[in-house]
Amino acid sequence: MSSVLHFPTNPAPLSTADALALAEPVARQLAETAVARDQAGGHAARERELIRDSGLLALTVPQELGGLGASWPTFYRVLRRLAEADSALAHLFGFHHLQLASVQLYGTAEQQRRLLGETIRRRWFWGNALNPLDRRLLAVDTDQGWRLDGAKSFASGSVGADMLTFSAWHEGMQAALIGVRPADAPGISVRADWDAFGQKQTDSGTVSFDAVALPRADVLQPPGSVPTPRTTLRQQIAQLILVHLYVGIAQGALQAGLRFTRDESRPWFQSGVAAAVDDPFVQHRWGELWLQVRPAELLADAAAQSLQQALGRGDALTADERGAVAIAVAEAKVLAHRAALSVSQQLFELTGARATSGRYGLDRFWRNARVHTLHDPVDYKLRDLGRHALTGAWPEPTPYS
Amino acid sequence: MSSVLHFPTNPAPLSTADALALAEPVARQLAETAVARDQAGGHAARERELIRDSGLLALTVPQELGGLGASWPTFYRVLRRLAEADSALAHLFGFHHLQLASVQLYGTAEQQRRLLGETIRRRWFWGNALNPLDRRLLAVDTDQGWRLDGAKSFASGSVGADMLTFSAWHEGMQAALIGVRPADAPGISVRADWDAFGQKQTDSGTVSFDAVALPRADVLQPPGSVPTPRTTLRQQIAQLILVHLYVGIAQGALQAGLRFTRDESRPWFQSGVAAAVDDPFVQHRWGELWLQVRPAELLADAAAQSLQQALGRGDALTADERGAVAIAVAEAKVLAHRAALSVSQQLFELTGARATSGRYGLDRFWRNARVHTLHDPVDYKLRDLGRHALTGAWPEPTPYS
Amino acid sequence: MSSVLHFPTNPAPLSTADALALAEPVARQLAETAVARDQAGGHAARERELIRDSGLLALTVPQELGGLGASWPTFYRVLRRLAEADSALAHLFGFHHLQLASVQLYGTAEQQRRLLGETIRRRWFWGNALNPLDRRLLAVDTDQGWRLDGAKSFASGSVGADMLTFSAWHEGMQAALIGVRPADAPGISVRADWDAFGQKQTDSGTVSFDAVALPRADVLQPPGSVPTPRTTLRQQIAQLILVHLYVGIAQGALQAGLRFTRDESRPWFQSGVAAAVDDPFVQHRWGELWLQVRPAELLADAAAQSLQQALGRGDALTADERGAVAIAVAEAKVLAHRAALSVSQQLFELTGARATSGRYGLDRFWRNARVHTLHDPVDYKLRDLGRHALTGAWPEPTPYS
Amino acid sequence: MSSVLHFPTNPAPLSTADALALAEPVARQLAETAVARDQAGGHAARERELIRDSGLLALTVPQELGGLGASWPTFYRVLRRLAEADSALAHLFGFHHLQLASVQLYGTAEQQRRLLGETIRRRWFWGNALNPLDRRLLAVDTDQGWRLDGAKSFASGSVGADMLTFSAWHEGMQAALIGVRPADAPGISVRADWDAFGQKQTDSGTVSFDAVALPRADVLQPPGSVPTPRTTLRQQIAQLILVHLYVGIAQGALQAGLRFTRDESRPWFQSGVAAAVDDPFVQHRWGELWLQVRPAELLADAAAQSLQQALGRGDALTADERGAVAIAVAEAKVLAHRAALSVSQQLFELTGARATSGRYGLDRFWRNARVHTLHDPVDYKLRDLGRHALTGAWPEPTPYS
Repeated sequence: MSSVLHFPTNPAPLSTADALALAEPVARQLAETAVARDQAGGHAARERELIRDSGLLALTVPQELGGLGASWPTFYRVLRRLAEADSALAHLFGFHHLQLASVQLYGTAEQQRRLLGETIRRRWFWGNALNPLDRRLLAVDTDQGWRLDGAKSFASGSVGADMLTFSAWHEGMQAALIGVRPADAPGISVRADWDAFGQKQTDSGTVSFDAVALPRADVLQPPGSVPTPRTTLRQQIAQLILVHLYVGIAQGALQAGLRFTRDESRPWFQSGVAAAVDDPFVQHRWGELWLQVRPAELLADAAAQSLQQALGRGDALTADERGAVAIAVAEAKVLAHRAALSVSQQLFELTGARATSGRYGLDRFWRNARVHTLHDPVDYKLRDLGRHALTGAWPEPTPYS
Repeated sequence: MSSVLHFPTNPAPLSTADALALAEPVARQLAETAVARDQAGGHAARERELIRDSGLLALTVPQELGGLGASWPTFYRVLRRLAEADSALAHLFGFHHLQLASVQLYGTAEQQRRLLGETIRRRWFWGNALNPLDRRLLAVDTDQGWRLDGAKSFASGSVGADMLTFSAWHEGMQAALIGVRPADAPGISVRADWDAFGQKQTDSGTVSFDAVALPRADVLQPPGSVPTPRTTLRQQIAQLILVHLYVGIAQGALQAGLRFTRDESRPWFQSGVAAAVDDPFVQHRWGELWLQVRPAELLADAAAQSLQQALGRGDALTADERGAVAIAVAEAKVLAHRAALSVSQQLFELTGARATSGRYGLDRFWRNARVHTLHDPVDYKLRDLGRHALTGAWPEPTPYS
Repeated sequence: MSSVLHFPTNPAPLSTADALALAEPVARQLAETAVARDQAGGHAARERELIRDSGLLALTVPQELGGLGASWPTFYRVLRRLAEADSALAHLFGFHHLQLASVQLYGTAEQQRRLLGETIRRRWFWGNALNPLDRRLLAVDTDQGWRLDGAKSFASGSVGADMLTFSAWHEGMQAALIGVRPADAPGISVRADWDAFGQKQTDSGTVSFDAVALPRADVLQPPGSVPTPRTTLRQQIAQLILVHLYVGIAQGALQAGLRFTRDESRPWFQSGVAAAVDDPFVQHRWGELWLQVRPAELLADAAAQSLQQALGRGDALTADERGAVAIAVAEAKVLAHRAALSVSQQLFELTGARATSGRYGLDRFWRNARVHTLHDPVDYKLRDLGRHALTGAWPEPTPYS
Repeated sequence: MSSVLHFPTNPAPLSTADALALAEPVARQLAETAVARDQAGGHAARERELIRDSGLLALTVPQELGGLGASWPTFYRVLRRLAEADSALAHLFGFHHLQLASVQLYGTAEQQRRLLGETIRRRWFWGNALNPLDRRLLAVDTDQGWRLDGAKSFASGSVGADMLTFSAWHEGMQAALIGVRPADAPGISVRADWDAFGQKQTDSGTVSFDAVALPRADVLQPPGSVPTPRTTLRQQIAQLILVHLYVGIAQGALQAGLRFTRDESRPWFQSGVAAAVDDPFVQHRWGELWLQVRPAELLADAAAQSLQQALGRGDALTADERGAVAIAVAEAKVLAHRAALSVSQQLFELTGARATSGRYGLDRFWRNARVHTLHDPVDYKLRDLGRHALTGAWPEPTPYS
């Protein structure tokens, strides 16, 4: 029985306000160096330690296992706050918790106790190599469990991770297993080969497995495990991490742009006003951009509540209930996607040309948004929503929905 | 002290679910004849009685005065449900309650008791002639109060109203008073001169006042009364009625369009699918329209909660708190405006040409949306939002904000 | 050889300026009664005679057959001018010429001489019953040709037509023939059953054929005729009629709206300006709508030039050349579709609420645009354009492309 | 009389096809290194020589002065072709010709002969320091002419220029003069301080003038010269350079994106098709992007024709005729602005995530478009268009319109 330890079971979980208070100094410190680190790219070792030291890696771990026991809506608010400041580091933070969720959703009670407990004790930072569509990593049966050979690309947070979650393809079963292993286990190596023009410090490397021994105790889902409505919530947790990241980018861009218009922009010589903030066109456009962000926020929050309720149902969760979460997440995803791109592109219309100076680094919002929003195509979310509206069909549980 | 009777003071107000249950049969009956009545236009005497008989005219009246004591969020949900079916009659319903709100916000405790009590006992249906920007109706001092001469145009719900709320301009004070009078008071006459191409049955006539005696007891606000944050919530209540009406129209159009695509549309011969609901373009577009409506719903609900909280603050309401309500309402207004227009226009792309047959009357959604959304220009809402984002300034309290 | 008489072969065809001068008084007279006739619906006998008396029915007939010999770009400019004033009557005019084009594209030299000559001599007004996707009209072999039984719906201009073009399905050949017949031929009857909420006076009836004799001389294309690049230009001529109609509606709506803002609208009380035309938001939005119409005009004109060139190539026209026309028409179609809908919807934001009065009839632009733009789905035009951009593939010749 | 030498006066000017043939190898060579040079930034000395060696610096110089005598529409087509490949170098090329146009519009016949002749003989590359809104550069009367002190920022093409055009403020006259000087004249120095995130190699430096002697012969317009409709065409030439640059960026992005979709993208696993080019959503979106670019092209070409006609009118050009050019340019500007931003942003939806790899450099289109489109605010173009539509007023001649 994998789901004995349903969260949140703790009597006094960390409140959203308290969690945001923990996150605030981290966000501020990330913001201070975000422009410079965006330009430099690479691995942000110091900033990872900042997050680790804040205690936020324990945010979603149940209190009885030593964690902070925050709810998922609280987690997502923290994620959003960090993403406003630095969406690459926020991604690392978000995907760390996605791996913890995987342990909670897929693991046995014993595995949950052990892995989450160790996460607290050893202050593990988790990375992701769990892409079931990529079948290049193969698992072969051994006496103790499996042997792993192959590689996983675009493994977010893998560079510098303590622990990794991964999927591996089992030819015999024609199915994937899901396992965990320390990143420094014999045979595992990580190559830092991520070179996108945005989200530069997401440590998305290629993880190679060379005859890696995978003991049974580290397998969360053996090959051929039948997914349940509850286990497939993992994809919704992942998608909702993207949503809140996009919203955070949109908010970060909005605030940076508003600040620039207010503090730096000059009124256009034909505007007839003394300050850029009094130009009716400037006000009107900021109104438009504000209206990109607010609905995305509300829908992102609503989806987080929907997810929390679904998790609260434990194994009783039905396919219909799971479907309703997927719809709420899809709705929020499309809006967040658009908000991040619109605001990060259009803020410049309102700041004027001088805001394009490299010293402000204001283009990083767009580059981060543009790279991150390509995770999976938004058109298929729109299709899922329209199909549901027409026929009542729920999005099929896939690695992306 | 005007505000002794703050609502809701009742211990067990009508729940949203119960209110919607009351509204459901009304909405269904309105829907059955909506197409025919849209074509005919004119006064919907029978449907007004339907609403009256349902008890919904008492929805926002406090329980201690004999009403149902529903909260404002509940009222707005009911309004939206009715607007899905028939946005003209829903407007009458909404503006009836706006007048009751005026009594609660502007009137003395005695006036509230009397006018709201009579509303219950006599089953009054109220109409609106309260447009302070229109100064053609003049109030002149008399011994017993004032004498009224002049006219008010575009008076929603005035045709067939039992009671009227109105503003009248006092030349000496250079300010307006706000009063109420029975629609059949000597000297008052209503002309049914509304001929717009949508919202046809809103009974928006011209009310003429010919030497009408206005006793002091019927004046809610004498000329020169200083508006407070609380009294200026009246405009937010009014704006939020528009918001929920627009959302209701959008939902009505969405449901009608989805039904048509599902039940009537044929797949396009190049689509390669057997049913219109399986065409990826059709699914995608319905997804887009769905995403017009959902955020508008959520923001409309959030604004209703914000208004309810502000009303709960009574006379302690500050200008900042009032401003926050105005921002929430403005946000919802822009989205609802766009949702109503977009969905009512674009549904036809998805139903195909046969849906334009007059027998379906599907163009009424657009005509209703188009006429109603012209109440006040959406650009000034966007300006208010942008200005607030830039400078923190709240929308100035005006008759429209 | 069907194509001896390629147009234009005349030495001094009617110029665009001269053709527009012929059209101008017609357009003005149509405009005067357009609101009233839109409300009344039905058959516009008097206005059909207006068009007939103007000589414009001879516009595209080659001069050597007694026509005015105007080029297709000239024809489309005239069509657009008429559509500005009255898009239903413009449709009748446009589809009359589409039938003449069918005679030129499909008919033998003898048929062209006879049918186009008679069109001039007898001042025929042609109607359309040529929808090859509708196979309910059947042709059975007889000694003299074929016997026709069945019906054609949505036959534009059929009510009141002198001559009809139609397709009929031949079961034996599993193919359609294309023929012409006088509308008063024995066995043909037309029912006026068009009841859409726009384009009301397009005389789009249902044509019933009851044992109608179809002599060989009246068959333009026997069943099984192989389409050539040139003959399939008929669909492009038809699509481009729609394009110019949409552009005309957009221009008509633009001009009507600008006139209203200029002459009737009051400045919004918060605008700080003395006239609506000075409100920066009003100027900005009109700029946006202007920019919907202008590109649509230019692309519509460019497509007409492309079509004319292709027609000038006669039977030498290649599939690639035909494809280039189809791309140009598809481009123009999408823009015209959107311009007509956008302008006719949004003009009201700029005129204010009083423009919704029934006496102005300003909603007719939207209703006409909305009904007419549903002829065939715009998404498949976008698909054709994108596929061409990606792979170079041309739109397949179908009845709609 | 400044305008004896109106262009084009040559009998056989270079055709568009011939000019494009000259430009093609330049464009290809620029394209090969564009990604690397975008990353490196700085001064592109080698590429400037490429352009110089091609002879294209003589493109707009009249043939009688030794130039190629191309028309302005031809010049703009060449500019667009270069901008597809490298919009920074295209900007240098475009602004070189803008300075030559200034000599033709502002200079005496003698100045035109001398300066344009020397341009050919010495193969000068001109830079721009002509921003009349920036009054920091002051001109003081001297016996031989004027002395210049101060600086001009954002001077496009100034780094590495041979000759400079500039405006300088004359306090006594309260007006600006317009002059030219060699970039290596005593007292002139150029600082390379441009650090925007796009259009990196536009050599937009700050030009400092330290007691620079300006002889009368080098003054094209003394302070207080009254602008004429013809001289104010300079701004339209400048704006139309921006337009064609934006269109070139849009086309470059479109082609690069289409190529990636075709050659590199994998179909989405839910698409049910074997190649990305067959996904209906991909086809549809490319259709949308295509429809951003095509109208922008057509309007840009139409504006170039309008400008050429106006230049052909010489000093007879009226304010109305000049106004018509300004409207045509404004129309094209808004569309080109949007096309460049839309395509460069959205192409990634269609290429998928792998296209964000730094080695493709595909984000440069967006960064270039974003920086360049901030030259002057698009909202004031929309205002100009709307105002013209409403009242017939032409855009006022300003440095930007």
